[in-house]
Amino acid sequence: MSGQGDKNIYWHAPEVTVHDRRDANDYRSCVLWFTGLSASGKSTLANALSKAFHAIGVNSYVLDGDNIRHGLNKDLGFSPDDRKENIRRIGEVSKLFVDAGLIVLTAFISPYREDRDRVRSLFRDGEFIEVHVKCPIEVCERRDPKGAYQRAKAGQIRDYTGISAPYEEPLRPELVIKTATMSKQECYAAVLDYLGKNGYLGSELARKALLLPV
Amino acid sequence: MSGQGDKNIYWHAPEVTVHDRRDANDYRSCVLWFTGLSASGKSTLANALSKAFHAIGVNSYVLDGDNIRHGLNKDLGFSPDDRKENIRRIGEVSKLFVDAGLIVLTAFISPYREDRDRVRSLFRDGEFIEVHVKCPIEVCERRDPKGAYQRAKAGQIRDYTGISAPYEEPLRPELVIKTATMSKQECYAAVLDYLGKNGYLGSELARKALLLPV
Repeated sequence: MSGQGDKNIYWHAPEVTVHDRRDANDYRSCVLWFTGLSASGKSTLANALSKAFHAIGVNSYVLDGDNIRHGLNKDLGFSPDDRKENIRRIGEVSKLFVDAGLIVLTAFISPYREDRDRVRSLFRDGEFIEVHVKCPIEVCERRDPKGAYQRAKAGQIRDYTGISAPYEEPLRPELVIKTATMSKQECYAAVLDYLGKNGYLGSELARKALLLPV
Repeated sequence: MSGQGDKNIYWHAPEVTVHDRRDANDYRSCVLWFTGLSASGKSTLANALSKAFHAIGVNSYVLDGDNIRHGLNKDLGFSPDDRKENIRRIGEVSKLFVDAGLIVLTAFISPYREDRDRVRSLFRDGEFIEVHVKCPIEVCERRDPKGAYQRAKAGQIRDYTGISAPYEEPLRPELVIKTATMSKQECYAAVLDYLGKNGYLGSELARKALLLPV
């Protein structure tokens, strides 16, 4: 005896496929998975790109702590298990957005390699683009807009990535963006360049995006 | 002492707002929340509409058991608590899609009024459109493509909505679609008519969609 649906769920082809959606667009849906320390620049970069995508008519969406931790994942805390579940759900939601034809930009520290690799495994080849937003921790600490690094060092925040919890760098990210030594414009252009050269954005769209002010 | 992020999450305006996205489109993002018994026609209707939206250039996405139960909610079963959490997460994901500018179509039995009302409360006025896909259970049983009603009656599936678990009809749905007495074309047209008259679709888009074969 099983619960409703155990035998009642089956895969069938949806009426509109991701291929239909892509055929209608001059871009290819994917997830740009930004990973890096707090204050490394993930959100800033994701939002600058999303703004550009909007301006050139590319559907995109940023998933970040603001819209995830207050909503879908508000039942989760910061224990290792909860962090893992947090990233799992974000991965699954990203997959839905990619299936819907959007370019998704995720801006989460996502410190564990295993969690990121598990998300990657949800996607078809080429749909998951891991972007390591790399910045020395000293620079992140100096930026530290919310004083969190200072509080973490003072022991007022526990399990703080880079201070009292590990950050595992990606081993083979598709892109590394060094925000301490590159200007915002260079960071932005590096991502667009990747998307253009690898066929995620049509050449005309990539060119247009690069001409926009950041 | 708190976990990372407890003090580290705060709301800020995203760079591209839902208003920016809507301004760029001749339609208004919303969720069409189809609720009704198994085999009442929720998925069929949602997919027919999504196909039409795609044809007229309206971004939409169907959330249903296929893409949710195998992914985001694969950790959930069919207990009352799990069903509640299932609907909560679907509501939160719908909210992200609406924020991203899409018309979301959800096709879940969602039998409990309280759960649906909780989802409604996540949205701004007018963003949540509850569509009761109403069909007598005898008709659903006759359709019963997967033999689930028969198995439920034989006691082989427990907690089956309409047989051994309740279905609470919406009290004030925005729309009621009677799939036993209306043709597929009429059901489809009724939803489009609602969207056109209430400003979700520009009149030209609504007209185009109505001319498409279902």
